[in-house]
Amino acid sequence: MDFPIPLPSDRLRRQIAFLLEADKLKGVLRRSYLIHGERRENSGEHSWHAALLTMILAEYSNRSIDVSKVIRMMLVHDLVEIDAGDTFIYDEAGNADKAVRERAAAERIFGLLPDDQRDQVRQLWEEFESQRTAEAKFANAMDRLMPVLHNYFTDGRSWREHNVTQERALAKNRKIADGASELWDLAQSLIVASLR
Amino acid sequence: MDFPIPLPSDRLRRQIAFLLEADKLKGVLRRSYLIHGERRENSGEHSWHAALLTMILAEYSNRSIDVSKVIRMMLVHDLVEIDAGDTFIYDEAGNADKAVRERAAAERIFGLLPDDQRDQVRQLWEEFESQRTAEAKFANAMDRLMPVLHNYFTDGRSWREHNVTQERALAKNRKIADGASELWDLAQSLIVASLR
Repeated sequence: MDFPIPLPSDRLRRQIAFLLEADKLKGVLRRSYLIHGERRENSGEHSWHAALLTMILAEYSNRSIDVSKVIRMMLVHDLVEIDAGDTFIYDEAGNADKAVRERAAAERIFGLLPDDQRDQVRQLWEEFESQRTAEAKFANAMDRLMPVLHNYFTDGRSWREHNVTQERALAKNRKIADGASELWDLAQSLIVASLR
Repeated sequence: MDFPIPLPSDRLRRQIAFLLEADKLKGVLRRSYLIHGERRENSGEHSWHAALLTMILAEYSNRSIDVSKVIRMMLVHDLVEIDAGDTFIYDEAGNADKAVRERAAAERIFGLLPDDQRDQVRQLWEEFESQRTAEAKFANAMDRLMPVLHNYFTDGRSWREHNVTQERALAKNRKIADGASELWDLAQSLIVASLR
């Protein structure tokens, strides 16, 4: 995005360019429907909700975590979708090349930032994707719990539209247990009740 | 929102009730238009973007701040709009009773949470509103900078639709200087360029 007015530094120019690019995440549609409303959710508002979940549900993490770090992780975890699109977790074909598409997106989008911030944001995203640390496990649990709630309160709408069976929903969301086993108990009941 | 399935604790029931209620913020429309797209922005995705701005632009704060606290502030700063609606900063009539409407909303919405979390979230919101601490001043600067950018890149669209003059836009956004004077220099140039 071009800046016809002069900016005081190249650093600020890059930061603003990144923040303007981020605006596009509000136009990336997910498969989930809003609980109160007829439309599908976008990845920008989802990122906000997932960060809010983190703030409120942190006490259920299986292990001790740096909550502020998980919140930052949630804020940037979906930015790659601006180029790579949202890949439905039940879409096997889409998930086959997801890593390659998202890696290219990370290169371009985080690359808009000054180098030090590019590296920080990239590291947060890599950590989220790798699902190895306690923070990443909890972040991934938050990312998956909300769609389960959305489905439960819309009679499993997005699952039914994509022929997701109870068995597959249980298998795909089992990762919630790695971050927060008590919340996985809840998610399980919700999946079973939505897709009986 | 009713929970037909049993929950393991009243605490979790209240936390989930709050998080489901929060979903409604995605349906509260602001006056700003998205940069990439024809529609108006909602307060959920705005909260995400403002939190991301905080993360990236924290170094411009006039005073030293607890960045993680400002990020949490941004995540909850607009929740009262679920009941009170978004009040356009240039709407003098709407701003006259804004405090009363928002206070009632805070009571109800934060009151869904367990008492300890209700108090924490309420405190973050009160601090944001009072604009006294360094964190609150920077948070308010972030909240105002993004609409200026949105207007700049849509040819001042929402300002023109509501007959906001350059003089009023400058007066209403001057608070950015209290949190981040360098970013106020930028905002000023953008306002002047959008509304000449």
